[in-house]
Amino acid sequence: MPESKIDEIDTEFDLTPIFRPKSAVVIGLSQKNPYHPGNAMFTKNLMEMEVKTYGVAPKYKEIEGHKIYNKINALPEIPDLAVLAVSSRISLSVIKEAAEFGIRGAIIVGGCFGETGKEGKKKQDEIVKVCMDYDMPFIGPNCVGVYSPPILDTLFLPSERMTKPKSGNVAVISQSGGVLVDQFFINCAEREIGISTAVSVGNKAMINETHLINYFEKDPKTDVIALYLEGFHVGDGRKFCINARKSKKDIVVYSGGRTSAGKTAAGSHTGSLAANNLIMAGAFKQYSVINPETEIELKNTLKVYSMLANPYRNYSTMSIHGDKIAILSVSGGHGVLCSDLLEKYNLSLTKLTEKQKDDVGFLLNPSASKIAGLNNPIDITGSGGNEDIVNILEYLLNQKNIEMVLILLVPQVPQLSMSLGRDIVNLGNKYKKPIIGYVPWTPKFSLIREALELNHIPCGNTIEEAVQMAAAIKQKGEGGIRKKFSHNSL
Amino acid sequence: MPESKIDEIDTEFDLTPIFRPKSAVVIGLSQKNPYHPGNAMFTKNLMEMEVKTYGVAPKYKEIEGHKIYNKINALPEIPDLAVLAVSSRISLSVIKEAAEFGIRGAIIVGGCFGETGKEGKKKQDEIVKVCMDYDMPFIGPNCVGVYSPPILDTLFLPSERMTKPKSGNVAVISQSGGVLVDQFFINCAEREIGISTAVSVGNKAMINETHLINYFEKDPKTDVIALYLEGFHVGDGRKFCINARKSKKDIVVYSGGRTSAGKTAAGSHTGSLAANNLIMAGAFKQYSVINPETEIELKNTLKVYSMLANPYRNYSTMSIHGDKIAILSVSGGHGVLCSDLLEKYNLSLTKLTEKQKDDVGFLLNPSASKIAGLNNPIDITGSGGNEDIVNILEYLLNQKNIEMVLILLVPQVPQLSMSLGRDIVNLGNKYKKPIIGYVPWTPKFSLIREALELNHIPCGNTIEEAVQMAAAIKQKGEGGIRKKFSHNSL
Repeated sequence: MPESKIDEIDTEFDLTPIFRPKSAVVIGLSQKNPYHPGNAMFTKNLMEMEVKTYGVAPKYKEIEGHKIYNKINALPEIPDLAVLAVSSRISLSVIKEAAEFGIRGAIIVGGCFGETGKEGKKKQDEIVKVCMDYDMPFIGPNCVGVYSPPILDTLFLPSERMTKPKSGNVAVISQSGGVLVDQFFINCAEREIGISTAVSVGNKAMINETHLINYFEKDPKTDVIALYLEGFHVGDGRKFCINARKSKKDIVVYSGGRTSAGKTAAGSHTGSLAANNLIMAGAFKQYSVINPETEIELKNTLKVYSMLANPYRNYSTMSIHGDKIAILSVSGGHGVLCSDLLEKYNLSLTKLTEKQKDDVGFLLNPSASKIAGLNNPIDITGSGGNEDIVNILEYLLNQKNIEMVLILLVPQVPQLSMSLGRDIVNLGNKYKKPIIGYVPWTPKFSLIREALELNHIPCGNTIEEAVQMAAAIKQKGEGGIRKKFSHNSL
Repeated sequence: MPESKIDEIDTEFDLTPIFRPKSAVVIGLSQKNPYHPGNAMFTKNLMEMEVKTYGVAPKYKEIEGHKIYNKINALPEIPDLAVLAVSSRISLSVIKEAAEFGIRGAIIVGGCFGETGKEGKKKQDEIVKVCMDYDMPFIGPNCVGVYSPPILDTLFLPSERMTKPKSGNVAVISQSGGVLVDQFFINCAEREIGISTAVSVGNKAMINETHLINYFEKDPKTDVIALYLEGFHVGDGRKFCINARKSKKDIVVYSGGRTSAGKTAAGSHTGSLAANNLIMAGAFKQYSVINPETEIELKNTLKVYSMLANPYRNYSTMSIHGDKIAILSVSGGHGVLCSDLLEKYNLSLTKLTEKQKDDVGFLLNPSASKIAGLNNPIDITGSGGNEDIVNILEYLLNQKNIEMVLILLVPQVPQLSMSLGRDIVNLGNKYKKPIIGYVPWTPKFSLIREALELNHIPCGNTIEEAVQMAAAIKQKGEGGIRKKFSHNSL
């Protein structure tokens, strides 16, 4: 079988010293420029992170009040990790020194290597050769670094300018440092999606996406592997897909360079030969790689996949096909917009029987009952209260022709109390069916939203986001089925 | 010409007493239930709005410490507006009383009329007859009311549960009260889009969208008319489009019931016969009606159209075709994603000449210059600072082959100072070309975003939102051209 050959990883490296170091040394700091990347990495790890942090720079005795060593081999211990913030001219000699001292992994953030042309590529190749000889893997060069909370943060941006996600079960691998610290970090922080390790791969001279996926595959902290990719080197796309299909983790790829304009831009940026988007989208589908189209869809996919990996979520996605959904709304317009969106995302409403409609009407308070819409979407109107929502939700969760309930909450109506989230949670936890919420995205309703989300009922900031979450749950079910099938057939 | 007949409005009503009343009376309050819609409307107008507010309820002398009258004709003056919060059973007699007293307009919020069937429709028709006889237009029934800041707010939700937009130049007409107070209000408040008047039309027994558009057409406060529609009664769609084409204001329609699932839901909700979506989308395009597809696109369209009406914005959209756009980014990945999105929204990048690329490189600081991407998208990388951005932006704004600049700011990089927004504004105001910003949506960067937006440089919360804004500017140019043509040919 030719697949096994393609699938083969040339070398496997131990990346633990890079991602879970006990001690690290930052090499290259400046006494003149407090914004020097080396200073940022040195002080943020010293002050904020768990890793024991040393600094090395020639000449200085201290920087910002902290002791500095003048040479790597003057350090009182052999650190696990070397972080280089030195010029590309001296990177090779520094890497050699680090390797000879016994350091087991490195991160090289500086640029002026392969991305600038032939000469830079030569410098880069020389470093790779040394690191291969010493079996010392390195991330980069030309990257923003690694974030591995609560241990390590070598992203050389001041922490006060960043929005850092909490520790959690999503690993992020990004071909763009900007997209990593901006789209990934801000969205994950906002939606309480935790990160196991985030890596900016830069020129990926030695360590590439496949090495990283293999590492995260075995990482007990990681359940979901998310990537920002601008394309693959020749052959790597296929290798990637085959590995993804074998993976027991969920693999989510957000792609840049989908269009001809984007492809041209990606060529200038990472030099990636972006594959034909249609081919890659098809391959991803075939190989169970989740491929959200927009930043917002990425966010909601990660939220759902991250949450579904939690052992306390109490339903299996295996039986969810996305065609038996109920909408429970307190606004008719919201129900209409949600119905449109379900169709857009290839999901569909279940048809309630006449008996079911009667039952729902009977469960409603009399004044809501007179004006409610009892077809699916169910519109209990602004006359409905907490009790109506909870009673109908329980009824719906007990129906065989309903596999998922979307509750569209508009707490602007005075009958709904702020305990609504908790009331839904108390009920929802008893049933083995997914519930997804929509709660308007204003701080004043955060009491409701947080009650739901902390108990694994994800909530969209817009109706479309709630529907994207439903689509992700459906996709998870399909992915599971397809993965099982693939494992058997391989 | 048959068009003139279709176009004809049967009757024109004076809606000023409803939307700009000097005094109003809320009829129907409760001493037992402080959440009664009448109480909410009475106290919020009394305490928060400019309109002089009276309350009428039988039996009570006061409610929550405020004087209450027992009959309409006991009021010390004839108010401009009557707001009914009474049961559908007595609505007819109350309306008669109000009309006989000389009140010139009404809002009926209660339900149990046309939306519940034959009997309700009969009650509703009787009210219409009285109001036609007395020439007293009314909004509703079965609606959440009218918001006309700073004068009137009859939306019967407690203000502390709402997120109210400021006063401004966008009129909103909604077939769903829920969508009005939620999607419209929250998005407009968040993006500082001001509202002239917002109307929940309910069953539109007497006053419908066409009357409202005619009113707002002449309203000097209104520049943009935004609608949430779930469809038209037979014939009304064509009438609507013809009026829209003649309008001197921008007409933006957000549609519910686009899909077959949504259409069915809309049928239950507003009884609208949602037209075929493809036909309506085509007609809207033909008749210069702007038709955003998503809630987020609606938000960005309103932001741009609202802003473009401001006399201090200093460029014409007439010459903008969306095919000569420059991207100025501090992150390569952002440039790639933005290029993809431009293509998605039918916009395109201009091709920079070799000289232009050299010029841009020369304008950059030496360390950024070495690693920058000089093709369009221009990627000045994290080594670029405020000065680099301002210098290159000025250069781009002076180029004939560039009609619009998208600046993708990632202020996470330490070289960018928080005065970046102001620096861009000081320059941008001098040039007659649109600039659109992307600033990551976190409170910590609001200093930059606010400097830009307060000076009519709109900013997206995501790169896609910035591109939607560029698309709206292009569309405005096209709409203007098409409208001019239509006026001539009619």
